Amino acid sequence: MTGAPLPPGAETVVPVEWTDGGLGEGPVSGMRARSLAPEGAEGHVHVYRSAEARAHVRAQGSDVRAGDRALDAGTVLGPPQIALLAAIGRGTARVRPRPRVVVMSTGSELVQPDEGLGTGQIYDSNSFALTAAARDAGAIAYRVGAVADDAETLRSTIEDQLVRADLVVTTGGVSVGAYDVVKEALSSVGDEDEPGSGVDFRKLAMQPGKPQGFGTIGPDHTPLLALPGNPVSSYVSFELFVRPAIRTLMGLDDVHRPRTRAILTADKALTSPKGRRQFLRGACADGSVAPVGGAGSHLVAALAQANALIVVPEDVESVEPGTEVEVVQLG
Amino acid sequence: MTGAPLPPGAETVVPVEWTDGGLGEGPVSGMRARSLAPEGAEGHVHVYRSAEARAHVRAQGSDVRAGDRALDAGTVLGPPQIALLAAIGRGTARVRPRPRVVVMSTGSELVQPDEGLGTGQIYDSNSFALTAAARDAGAIAYRVGAVADDAETLRSTIEDQLVRADLVVTTGGVSVGAYDVVKEALSSVGDEDEPGSGVDFRKLAMQPGKPQGFGTIGPDHTPLLALPGNPVSSYVSFELFVRPAIRTLMGLDDVHRPRTRAILTADKALTSPKGRRQFLRGACADGSVAPVGGAGSHLVAALAQANALIVVPEDVESVEPGTEVEVVQLG
Repeated sequence: MTGAPLPPGAETVVPVEWTDGGLGEGPVSGMRARSLAPEGAEGHVHVYRSAEARAHVRAQGSDVRAGDRALDAGTVLGPPQIALLAAIGRGTARVRPRPRVVVMSTGSELVQPDEGLGTGQIYDSNSFALTAAARDAGAIAYRVGAVADDAETLRSTIEDQLVRADLVVTTGGVSVGAYDVVKEALSSVGDEDEPGSGVDFRKLAMQPGKPQGFGTIGPDHTPLLALPGNPVSSYVSFELFVRPAIRTLMGLDDVHRPRTRAILTADKALTSPKGRRQFLRGACADGSVAPVGGAGSHLVAALAQANALIVVPEDVESVEPGTEVEVVQLG
Repeated sequence: MTGAPLPPGAETVVPVEWTDGGLGEGPVSGMRARSLAPEGAEGHVHVYRSAEARAHVRAQGSDVRAGDRALDAGTVLGPPQIALLAAIGRGTARVRPRPRVVVMSTGSELVQPDEGLGTGQIYDSNSFALTAAARDAGAIAYRVGAVADDAETLRSTIEDQLVRADLVVTTGGVSVGAYDVVKEALSSVGDEDEPGSGVDFRKLAMQPGKPQGFGTIGPDHTPLLALPGNPVSSYVSFELFVRPAIRTLMGLDDVHRPRTRAILTADKALTSPKGRRQFLRGACADGSVAPVGGAGSHLVAALAQANALIVVPEDVESVEPGTEVEVVQLG
């Protein structure tokens, strides 16, 4: 018995378990049954039970009929949807491709892992973390190792990457100061009179992640998000700004991390600067959340233990243990 | 102000916003401050506010100290964990690789999508669906198009694939009958006296998915799961048996789809054959679940609308609407 259509001229399907498999002399029922023996095989099949007409027969169109809508536009193609497309013979379907995201860290102080650290140097972690985060969000992600703090080098590196980028993400160089070359390099890219060209740099009322840049660059107005350089700042900024952008490019409706409310568990009150919305790393389980590590935006070890961000609104300066807080669920 | 260590000889970090950026004559505070001006730049920086000693200075080891355990064994490496490994200079880490899964459909009646359908032929959907499902479970998946119903061809195709397989999944050919070549081909692979060689074929007390094969093949005793050929049967079998195997190979603790309980919403009672555990396709939302489509294991369109499997235990033959049922959450 197979899932194939009934061969022409046949009236029913008889399970092979009800037969002698072609070793006998002929059917006991009056119906013509067709043996499923391999091609070229000859002879009669002995059927030991009578079979109802059209038993085990699947009518053409019983799954999908010609003209039926198989899938709605906007459906995410998971395994069952891919099964359906294949089952109706559709070898291709028009889909939104995964966006290609180029991730680039900047900073002359950055050294690649496994190399020796000199004075005043730190390891580049942002390019690795955000490439993984972009992939996790659904993108095809390309990592570009740390680019030195030189506006011309940065500009030409970005220009080289535009050919494979639907979105560019940089880290570092967006604050104020002589080393803030992302700002220097990108503020001058594109014609300011042309809509969609140029990158804006602003200070947002948040912690971490105060300095941010966003805009479009190059001939195709490729979107670019310039995140701050501290590892925790760049990761939190990615979760809040870049992940939704990637998921919007993918055509998804649900682009944000889920948010929930949980009871704060802590030894003492959380403090937060007035006028800035704070996103603290937390461990959330069973309706309660505990802060993990401190507020320092260089604390990567604590970030690796967190599964949530605790949101402290901009008008709140202190949160007592036992208070219900808003929580962004990560991962 | 950057995240870099304090340069030798410096006592504090003064935000550039508190200075004239190097255009002035000298610091107002009595402390030595070091300008963050580009290399080779000369001159004095005017500091307009006094700065506390060691302000904005991050002590070495304030994130992770040498000798600290950065990550526990068995940790899934998401973006923050990758950030941490990079931040401590670890360019490589010993991890479990994603398992390589070869998916192969069998059946001479199978035609690839976009080709013409002849009499008695159907489109191959299993190889596409299960390759996508294997990828979704975390594997690196390779699709092998439909293999004809010939034991020798099948055996040599599987042998060719073993070099890139940590797990082999086949569909079709596991029932009883002349076309059940997977059974014929694999029952004879390997020495029966050698532990871990050979594939067992059994009838499980479930619907869909009664006939199943499992075992190991080849010189490396590569695990193989032989699933039934009906599209719904193979997909349900994949979810119940292959996905947990892939996730176990990945070293995860949580290998099964989450299960929950929901109230059955239906026009009439669900019926289920005695002695077989039934997995019906359902749409689950807000604590209730409704069956989608019929029980036929060829109904791919309904499967594409489902987000859950409704479990009817083997000793239950009828489930009334309003009853609480067990539900396996998909996707």
